[in-house]
Amino acid sequence: MESLENRLHRCAINTATLGHREPLDVTLERIARAGFGGVAPWRHEVEAIGASAVARQLRALQLTVSGYCRSTYLTGATRAERRASIDSNIQALHDAAELDARCFVMVVGGVSAGSRDLAGARMQVEEGIAQLLAEARKLRIALAIEPLHPMYAAGRSVVNTIGQALALCETIAPDDPSMLGIAIDIYHCWWDPLLAESIADAGRARRILAYHVSDWLADTQDMLLDRGMMGDGVVDLRHFRHRMEQAGYDGMVEVELFSRDRWWKVQPDELLSVCAQRLQSVC
Amino acid sequence: MESLENRLHRCAINTATLGHREPLDVTLERIARAGFGGVAPWRHEVEAIGASAVARQLRALQLTVSGYCRSTYLTGATRAERRASIDSNIQALHDAAELDARCFVMVVGGVSAGSRDLAGARMQVEEGIAQLLAEARKLRIALAIEPLHPMYAAGRSVVNTIGQALALCETIAPDDPSMLGIAIDIYHCWWDPLLAESIADAGRARRILAYHVSDWLADTQDMLLDRGMMGDGVVDLRHFRHRMEQAGYDGMVEVELFSRDRWWKVQPDELLSVCAQRLQSVC
Repeated sequence: MESLENRLHRCAINTATLGHREPLDVTLERIARAGFGGVAPWRHEVEAIGASAVARQLRALQLTVSGYCRSTYLTGATRAERRASIDSNIQALHDAAELDARCFVMVVGGVSAGSRDLAGARMQVEEGIAQLLAEARKLRIALAIEPLHPMYAAGRSVVNTIGQALALCETIAPDDPSMLGIAIDIYHCWWDPLLAESIADAGRARRILAYHVSDWLADTQDMLLDRGMMGDGVVDLRHFRHRMEQAGYDGMVEVELFSRDRWWKVQPDELLSVCAQRLQSVC
Repeated sequence: MESLENRLHRCAINTATLGHREPLDVTLERIARAGFGGVAPWRHEVEAIGASAVARQLRALQLTVSGYCRSTYLTGATRAERRASIDSNIQALHDAAELDARCFVMVVGGVSAGSRDLAGARMQVEEGIAQLLAEARKLRIALAIEPLHPMYAAGRSVVNTIGQALALCETIAPDDPSMLGIAIDIYHCWWDPLLAESIADAGRARRILAYHVSDWLADTQDMLLDRGMMGDGVVDLRHFRHRMEQAGYDGMVEVELFSRDRWWKVQPDELLSVCAQRLQSVC
């Protein structure tokens, strides 16, 4: 397998990696100047400037949007709440289309506050995705379901494995892999005993729409904001990218790293330089 | 399905629930006086008093040992390290036999420090269990593999789902369900999309040796020591016990709750009373 050496054009930076410390236009300049080919911006950043202006800057900098972050939750206590989320996501899909994003990243939501109905929450997710898919098809923006680590099942996502996400895709859009697929983030999935088979299955189904990297730190201090820089943790990133490529994935490798107490304190250009170095040496 | 009302004789307390604040003999008195039928003590407590003395007290109090906690890790950087762990576990099996424990609970270990070889760690676990099984058979003490939540895959256990544990059992002891099975702790497994099938499979295979309860708090603050009291979290405990019984499990329901900042500050008798009340009302 080829390393990513001299292939930063195939690599993207999720803007959360930089800690959202600067306006998006500044961030995009930095990412392009560091040599990356792609970026994954977040809604609040894009909406602060306006999608059209962001799209112009992206074209000028020749940056591809590896994914647009991200859906609001599809689970909710009331039908009105869930409908409001669908409407908000439809709005985001229009922006994703304007940015020519490779996909719209779906973080589907956890069990609703006060509820213990996990199966019900999973049904809400299925219904919500089906509703969004009609609009996604019109706009030609693929929906990428991102399975989150099981430690987020209560609050952020009731979709927790690639196998589960794939089953959802096949249920909702059996004949249409191009518009509904999966964003695989290795931080969320590295532990999965079925990971190798699941990546192969997702590849065969042509459902892999994105690949995110960071690392799992052996002494993780915080469940949300303590991801590790690639190479600093326990994940064999080279091995898993190999599996992704064997499964036919030839899209971008996106760094998505939440690290409040470590990397978000590092100056942005320096942080991007570390990302570039680690992508080329350990991913 | 019957509730656990008036059936505390079918319920057990894992001594970690009380925070290991008192010597084991005091703890056993409290648990028996509160009406529970079982207890799951930890090695360090038993070894402090001696297994024979503990066994005498258990008989006098008519307490069953629902499980003996727990194996040292089977993963390790060197063969010598792994051998030392096997030897230590064999010692513990002798104590488990003296205590007439229903099973010896196996927490198998994570990826070794400095390693990224998850598959290799899983092979070490398979080898270690196979080695221990010979001794377990001689002593007639069943080994119960406990799948831990995926957030512990790096440091504590590379066995993270019931399905994975069951596959291990079938590989290591295909014809002998009585000596190698699974301890199902709902805190670790509640999120699993394959949970219902896995419990049913494990039941059909006659591999379910223990069932542990606590609850997953929506706002979990600590990855190790912030489990919730049954009823305070997002897990539909009644539903899952129903599934356990449908799968043929008729053993004890054991409370195992690590809660440094909340329940370990409550006076032991009061805490046992809350456990009893919640077991009978929500489990």
